[in-house]
Amino acid sequence: MPFMGWGGSPSDPLYGGGLHLTLFVPIGCELSSERSSYTFQMPEEWQCEQQLALRTICLGAQARDEFHVLELVPNEEGAAVPLATLKPSVLPMVTLVGVELTPPVTFRLRAGSGPVYISGQHVASKTPTHYQPLPPHSDP
Amino acid sequence: MPFMGWGGSPSDPLYGGGLHLTLFVPIGCELSSERSSYTFQMPEEWQCEQQLALRTICLGAQARDEFHVLELVPNEEGAAVPLATLKPSVLPMVTLVGVELTPPVTFRLRAGSGPVYISGQHVASKTPTHYQPLPPHSDP
Amino acid sequence: MPFMGWGGSPSDPLYGGGLHLTLFVPIGCELSSERSSYTFQMPEEWQCEQQLALRTICLGAQARDEFHVLELVPNEEGAAVPLATLKPSVLPMVTLVGVELTPPVTFRLRAGSGPVYISGQHVASKTPTHYQPLPPHSDP
Amino acid sequence: MPFMGWGGSPSDPLYGGGLHLTLFVPIGCELSSERSSYTFQMPEEWQCEQQLALRTICLGAQARDEFHVLELVPNEEGAAVPLATLKPSVLPMVTLVGVELTPPVTFRLRAGSGPVYISGQHVASKTPTHYQPLPPHSDP
Amino acid sequence: MPFMGWGGSPSDPLYGGGLHLTLFVPIGCELSSERSSYTFQMPEEWQCEQQLALRTICLGAQARDEFHVLELVPNEEGAAVPLATLKPSVLPMVTLVGVELTPPVTFRLRAGSGPVYISGQHVASKTPTHYQPLPPHSDP
Repeated sequence: MPFMGWGGSPSDPLYGGGLHLTLFVPIGCELSSERSSYTFQMPEEWQCEQQLALRTICLGAQARDEFHVLELVPNEEGAAVPLATLKPSVLPMVTLVGVELTPPVTFRLRAGSGPVYISGQHVASKTPTHYQPLPPHSDP
Repeated sequence: MPFMGWGGSPSDPLYGGGLHLTLFVPIGCELSSERSSYTFQMPEEWQCEQQLALRTICLGAQARDEFHVLELVPNEEGAAVPLATLKPSVLPMVTLVGVELTPPVTFRLRAGSGPVYISGQHVASKTPTHYQPLPPHSDP
Repeated sequence: MPFMGWGGSPSDPLYGGGLHLTLFVPIGCELSSERSSYTFQMPEEWQCEQQLALRTICLGAQARDEFHVLELVPNEEGAAVPLATLKPSVLPMVTLVGVELTPPVTFRLRAGSGPVYISGQHVASKTPTHYQPLPPHSDP
Repeated sequence: MPFMGWGGSPSDPLYGGGLHLTLFVPIGCELSSERSSYTFQMPEEWQCEQQLALRTICLGAQARDEFHVLELVPNEEGAAVPLATLKPSVLPMVTLVGVELTPPVTFRLRAGSGPVYISGQHVASKTPTHYQPLPPHSDP
Repeated sequence: MPFMGWGGSPSDPLYGGGLHLTLFVPIGCELSSERSSYTFQMPEEWQCEQQLALRTICLGAQARDEFHVLELVPNEEGAAVPLATLKPSVLPMVTLVGVELTPPVTFRLRAGSGPVYISGQHVASKTPTHYQPLPPHSDP
């Protein structure tokens, strides 16, 4: 069962003051035999540049001891791209920090019955041209 | 038993001179059956932008040989996001450098009896508009 | 059998507006006994700076339990450079985020019968001098 | 027995020309039952911003097959923060690239008899305001 | 037997146009009982800033199942710094992306009979003051 992350939106005080240029909102999904694919959509109310920044892929504690292969499914034509191979008794998780993808992004379980958890952060960047600097002041 | 990190504050000489833009303060907590969740709060005296930069998640030497699953708990509605799956005989630790979260951040042990240690650094950034450059001088 | 990634081109709205400076297009290939080498070419219609940013190298679920060694093959003279050593029962995948190579880039299976999957992203950067900032406007 | 790294100082030609803004000097220490803690000090002759950038933590070939837990010891009050858990037959090393700490930094072996090796680089940064650009010239 | 990487030099079209600021040239070496140390030298024809950016360290498919410890040897006085501990049946490779060293850099096999492969990229950076921007033009 896929699930959405929590909290944080462009209307947050943290975001609106011209002081913060980037917002990171944790997000995740769960893949298994019952639901073997999931698509991360772009939140509609966000109108600036967006990315899905992957964080980790990890197996659930109850996953069977078999190879789980996770793949990226293309939005258009082309073959899927295997991204991770995990097995509880060998490698139960992997860090994918630094992998950023443009939504919509679809993941599919090519092998294994899961559960496999994908964690990431939605990144919304405001370009520097929008940046309103605070008036200069002396250091506290 | 969770515990706080040490040292370093915005009143440190390192921080106040206009020369250093970012402060990294090590911080950590311990999760186990006795205390299965912990929330990293934002230090109140810090008023500038802050992040919790994760560093590593590792098992204690005495942890039972079972899967330990650590999850992020949302501040608002929504399901928790599993972030790491560790087991002493398979993978006793993982590096999560590059994962930054906005406090308050709550971690919970979804599976396993621990101890699981989370290490990170509180990052306090001063925006460039506050930056007071030193007067130019010739190189030594 | 090698395969190409999907989607995204310099004619995409995402790319053309002067707002986005970099395009990441997922791409991958599969190496095995049948096809033990593959060359990532530079897409011809792209005329700006390009890189192949590696993401992960992972074994297929059906790979034999033997060591698989993947090497980079030089475009000119010189010996190949081993880049990864994987084995299903020991280490079924590795993350190579941060490794960027200039196409054409050729990978070859030095040992093992595969399948070995290489995932990456074609990175096309527009230099800042091409950047057309949006007219300034007040924050929403 | 702890040991110091080698080479490189602010008086090096590499450092003094205004062309290079950052200096990386390899450094390391060894922890074991005989010496279970070590403090990385800041070289006194360096007067600019400094950091200890961790690189790897690895076990010696002769380490006993037991869990080794390495922790950061606070300079002031507060509990130590476990940073890494290694075992020869499970995970004999870990990469900690991206973890930077402000000296003095003290590491201690909480569990295990070692040897455990910590490698890092002393980073000395010169701020951009000190930067003297070369006069412009045509490309070679 | 150590070996040099391939391709790419400052006289390449990619490098000379003022458009590209950094050149990455893959490079590697092999260490074993027969040749247990190797020094990466700085290519003489390169006159700008240079670094050896490490990528991966991996064992050959035929390596004996023993611990292999790789260390950095100082150019001047001081003890060597162990950097990686690998074993075929436990951890056959490691990623060292983010570790950059100033040539000459000497690696030595402290334990194990190899083969151990070190892969990296020679990085030659041109400083921004040399940068000749293209004349501004409208987006395609």
